Amino acid sequence: MATAGKVIKCKAAVAWEFNQPLVIEEVEVAPPQEKEIRIKIVAAGVCQSDLYFLLKCMNKAMFPAVLGHEAAGIVESVGPGVTEFQPGDKVIPLFMPQCRECRFCNSPKTNVCVNGIVGRFDEKEFEASRISCKGRKLLQLAGTSTFSEYTVVKEIAVAKIDAAAPLDKVCLIGCAICTGYGAAVNAAKVEAGSTCAVFGLGAVGLAAVMGCKAAGAQRIIAVDINPEKFEKAKVFGATDVVNPKDHSEPVHEVIAGMTNGGVDFSLECVGNVEVMRSALESSMEAWGVSVIVGWTDMYDIAIRPRHLICGRTWKGTVFGGFKAKDGVAAMTNAYLEKKVKLDEFITHNMPLEQINDAIELMKNSKCIRAVVEVSPP
Amino acid sequence: MATAGKVIKCKAAVAWEFNQPLVIEEVEVAPPQEKEIRIKIVAAGVCQSDLYFLLKCMNKAMFPAVLGHEAAGIVESVGPGVTEFQPGDKVIPLFMPQCRECRFCNSPKTNVCVNGIVGRFDEKEFEASRISCKGRKLLQLAGTSTFSEYTVVKEIAVAKIDAAAPLDKVCLIGCAICTGYGAAVNAAKVEAGSTCAVFGLGAVGLAAVMGCKAAGAQRIIAVDINPEKFEKAKVFGATDVVNPKDHSEPVHEVIAGMTNGGVDFSLECVGNVEVMRSALESSMEAWGVSVIVGWTDMYDIAIRPRHLICGRTWKGTVFGGFKAKDGVAAMTNAYLEKKVKLDEFITHNMPLEQINDAIELMKNSKCIRAVVEVSPP
Repeated sequence: MATAGKVIKCKAAVAWEFNQPLVIEEVEVAPPQEKEIRIKIVAAGVCQSDLYFLLKCMNKAMFPAVLGHEAAGIVESVGPGVTEFQPGDKVIPLFMPQCRECRFCNSPKTNVCVNGIVGRFDEKEFEASRISCKGRKLLQLAGTSTFSEYTVVKEIAVAKIDAAAPLDKVCLIGCAICTGYGAAVNAAKVEAGSTCAVFGLGAVGLAAVMGCKAAGAQRIIAVDINPEKFEKAKVFGATDVVNPKDHSEPVHEVIAGMTNGGVDFSLECVGNVEVMRSALESSMEAWGVSVIVGWTDMYDIAIRPRHLICGRTWKGTVFGGFKAKDGVAAMTNAYLEKKVKLDEFITHNMPLEQINDAIELMKNSKCIRAVVEVSPP
Repeated sequence: MATAGKVIKCKAAVAWEFNQPLVIEEVEVAPPQEKEIRIKIVAAGVCQSDLYFLLKCMNKAMFPAVLGHEAAGIVESVGPGVTEFQPGDKVIPLFMPQCRECRFCNSPKTNVCVNGIVGRFDEKEFEASRISCKGRKLLQLAGTSTFSEYTVVKEIAVAKIDAAAPLDKVCLIGCAICTGYGAAVNAAKVEAGSTCAVFGLGAVGLAAVMGCKAAGAQRIIAVDINPEKFEKAKVFGATDVVNPKDHSEPVHEVIAGMTNGGVDFSLECVGNVEVMRSALESSMEAWGVSVIVGWTDMYDIAIRPRHLICGRTWKGTVFGGFKAKDGVAAMTNAYLEKKVKLDEFITHNMPLEQINDAIELMKNSKCIRAVVEVSPP
């Protein structure tokens, strides 16, 4: 392409400061270096984790930054040493890499890559950024920064997808869908005929419901304090709905009463430590498996040891336990083969200029997924 | 026997009050009722859980009580409807029953029986007690009360063992050995070639070390703040020892440094919520499995969610995941076939009259197991 090897000037939504609206700015995106790829981002979802870093996490050293980690785009150019991609490839950037070489990538026990940096922050990440504005480097949060018309991502953190994939739909596979669906099938390992509870019916939670159904769960209890989510939960497979606000007793007691003592599998898709505790307590004492899917790193989770000693398992998952490149390609194919839903997650579409509206919708639980058209395909 | 059907007057160590020495008293042990068994207790171990209820738990409603739940004896008589036992059988009482009929007993996913009452207390348990002293019912703690020459236990909570078993040794199978050994092989499912850490080198911890070795662990790091325990840990299979007091950094960092990031499996055998956290943090972030084995129910355990989200599993186990009747019989046979050690756990033997000395030894970490000769065989 004509832009290869040159700095690209383009639009991006810049997070200059903690808890302030994003600002659409002209940014400079440097050419990809050794084993890096420059991607034209076509569509990006707005995820609760973006809001977490912008509105809650309060690590001010992380600003200025370009957020966004759930997107799809087209390779614009590749740096030296890149063999897996070429310009024009449809791709999904990955916040969790898959280098295929480290001891983690080579183990069937984990999908985490040693090159991943989940929930950690290092000042050096500013140096590594390829995006600048007004002479300042902008942190590429999660290594992706998809709220920019162009971004540069490491080759190990890009998944190639089928050329037939509609980017404004499969962008969701870059975070919510794999995270929720995989939490059910890979992390919880939901069993056919089992009873499940999913806490939080955002996109991740609904994808978890879809995963429970795909795994053959007989009963899927969808839990949310916002009853507007229940109708959609049923679309994805929920058989029962519970609004904790409708009950005077704690929700784990409600669920225990519905299920003869608790569910086999529970999934926390909120990112709230109190809900994580409720989800664990909602699982069957003798063998319940509770998986933490929502992200938070501000407070400890806590539980009385008895709740584990008697037989429960508490675990977590990042990106639903999918090896990232493999999982994204597989889930894209599953969508193209109509084995998983994506369209039903998308409640809003808007241009990049309206990204703050998308953030407001998310903040106020008024959307499932708003997909931002970052640059035209 | 001549005593069948009659009240037996015998000696027992009575816990009249919280945090007071036990008192050797003459007690009255009623005949076994429907599906109950009266057992002459020959030998009993003193376990940290006995000390927990006597010295820490502070539920004063539980007194007066007869403690003791790790013992072996001989059936004296059986109540109506008992078919599995007859007088003269060698048996081990079980604090966790195995009724073989409930949905838990019928599930391969748990060893807990719905008739078990781990860590719970109900006033009605006084009514169900068959042991009285000075006109008062004494709580049969854990349903066993083995610090009495005779006790009455439900048929579902008694395991028959091989007639060749030496009762003053196999008594330990009633708690510490199954709990620790099973935690490694059944709950953690330690893998051949793996790296393990065991926190706390009392009898449960040493049995966990033995279980890790039996499962084929390549490296077993034994952790204790009392270096006097290290020599014995090596007898059971420890390859490395760590005294947290020897290091300025937290023990999980020490272990991470020894193991390229953490162990595959960690087992907490202390019953301390801070150690439970350390044990979890000492396991490999991407796939570590940490099992809570020690008992406490006074405080919450706590951890930052990230520690689970990135791939760890936190679980617990009661009685090492062994279905109690089956496990006790199997472990007794394993001892008779010299596949597991028992003698090496026993550091002290004493008569029932000296039980307070045994408690003091335990309290001050001056013994591994003191075995009390409750009544002569």
